[in-house]
Amino acid sequence: MYLGMTQNVGFIGLGIMGWRMAANLRKAGFQLSVWNRTAAKAKRFATEHDAIAVDTPSSLAAQSDVVVTMVVDAPQVERVLLGPQGVAEGARDGLLCCDMSTIGPSAAIRIAGALHESGIGFVDAPVSGSSPKAEDGTLTIMAGGEREHFERALPLLEAMGELVVHVGPVGHGQMIKVINNAVAAINAAAVGEALLVGKQAGLDLDALVGVISAGSGASAMLDLKAGPMRSHDYTALFKLEHMLKDLRLCLQEAEAAGIGFGFASEAAEILQAAADQGLGERDFAALIEVLEVRAGLRL
Amino acid sequence: MYLGMTQNVGFIGLGIMGWRMAANLRKAGFQLSVWNRTAAKAKRFATEHDAIAVDTPSSLAAQSDVVVTMVVDAPQVERVLLGPQGVAEGARDGLLCCDMSTIGPSAAIRIAGALHESGIGFVDAPVSGSSPKAEDGTLTIMAGGEREHFERALPLLEAMGELVVHVGPVGHGQMIKVINNAVAAINAAAVGEALLVGKQAGLDLDALVGVISAGSGASAMLDLKAGPMRSHDYTALFKLEHMLKDLRLCLQEAEAAGIGFGFASEAAEILQAAADQGLGERDFAALIEVLEVRAGLRL
Repeated sequence: MYLGMTQNVGFIGLGIMGWRMAANLRKAGFQLSVWNRTAAKAKRFATEHDAIAVDTPSSLAAQSDVVVTMVVDAPQVERVLLGPQGVAEGARDGLLCCDMSTIGPSAAIRIAGALHESGIGFVDAPVSGSSPKAEDGTLTIMAGGEREHFERALPLLEAMGELVVHVGPVGHGQMIKVINNAVAAINAAAVGEALLVGKQAGLDLDALVGVISAGSGASAMLDLKAGPMRSHDYTALFKLEHMLKDLRLCLQEAEAAGIGFGFASEAAEILQAAADQGLGERDFAALIEVLEVRAGLRL
Repeated sequence: MYLGMTQNVGFIGLGIMGWRMAANLRKAGFQLSVWNRTAAKAKRFATEHDAIAVDTPSSLAAQSDVVVTMVVDAPQVERVLLGPQGVAEGARDGLLCCDMSTIGPSAAIRIAGALHESGIGFVDAPVSGSSPKAEDGTLTIMAGGEREHFERALPLLEAMGELVVHVGPVGHGQMIKVINNAVAAINAAAVGEALLVGKQAGLDLDALVGVISAGSGASAMLDLKAGPMRSHDYTALFKLEHMLKDLRLCLQEAEAAGIGFGFASEAAEILQAAADQGLGERDFAALIEVLEVRAGLRL
């Protein structure tokens, strides 16, 4: 049973998001061990942030009270937690795993079950917000899991996020995350179509965006993506292929539950077309390329 | 030519929105004559707000420097401005008409042309925001027309709105308005689908809405319509049939310009199905009824 306040934290996955999130944990005073698929990155992080780079997830687990994972998808989470030399192999008594990747609810429930058999707790705590919010520690974090586990993870989550919500049992953080991203993708695609209709009508697009952002059509996506769409600047804040993955996870869950999500299906189709054009590594604002071709018009 | 600062204003259309907007003009010190299709309403307004109720749009025009119209659709605007006993018949030299109804760009351009032949200026200045914003004088107003006309209308518009933008020539106010509403309808329908998917997944919908509203899926429609959808409270802030009308106007313009607006078409289909169920007079949050039937699930 966990009793103390100080926690040794292991962090796996030092990508664009993970690097910044781990840095905020360190800044908040947690002792940090890190592991990354590309070992050089873990070493660089360790040097820059006074952390310990370890050789395997298993040895990371051996010196951690809580292990945080921030990787790309469910197979990666399963590999580092449950695979050879994985976290489960090296886990100390009472280890808690907190996965902040977006892997969908089914995978989260499956992984939680496997860890439970080894006496390891699990919280799924995916995040909303891209690298600037990861850097500032202002992510939105939606956590699913037993209350006791959530409360143990909370001090860590608060070091990385501004709004941290315990949303329900394991898997519910994931479900809310993929629904949020589906809504974001829909809203972004609607912005893209609206810009093209406005352009075709000869409107002043600054006026169009300004008025909508003060009106009932306002959205986070309008604020964040209208500019990049108009300037065709797809510097990746959130990769299109990751957004597409999240939509697929949402649609799979909806389909399995026997419920449709028509707008999300349409958004996924647009993102898939963009990915097919080789835009998967770019920001998902690049979906405008698909809409432009459809419209026969360039912003 | 108009020279002075004080303006006698005529106001036509004292519905839910118009009543509140006219009251704000009076509050700002404009002398006000009013006309309404139901004369008793104009008399009541005149008594309550120290205005003059007149018998016809034509006699209204005879004592006005600027006539504001806030009615339901293009046929109504054409009737009161250009029909028998309409504004054009009674107009003094230099009259300016400022139509704040949502009638679509084509109708605005047609009406502006007809008025121009009678030496009457025209500004299309539709609004975003429903009755609470009309009441507070915090509407968003997007105005199309010649700069000189816009500047004459500006003191009036500022008495009714918080953000007043001159967006371009006649018709552009309308086009931005219908695009804004199309985006709003899409975002609202996406919220409805997301709530149902979340419900089906057994999520805590308070958590779902709270997290999305702090995340990348945030929108004005999430803030305004998730609550009414969940409680099935369709007290009309903006009638579904009016939203549907605006979407049709947007889609007509897009089609005429040879450009698609796929998400808006889908939203219009949902709203049409709701109207077919007799929900046209209710708030457009009632679109959730259609989505619930499709999903076989009630929020």
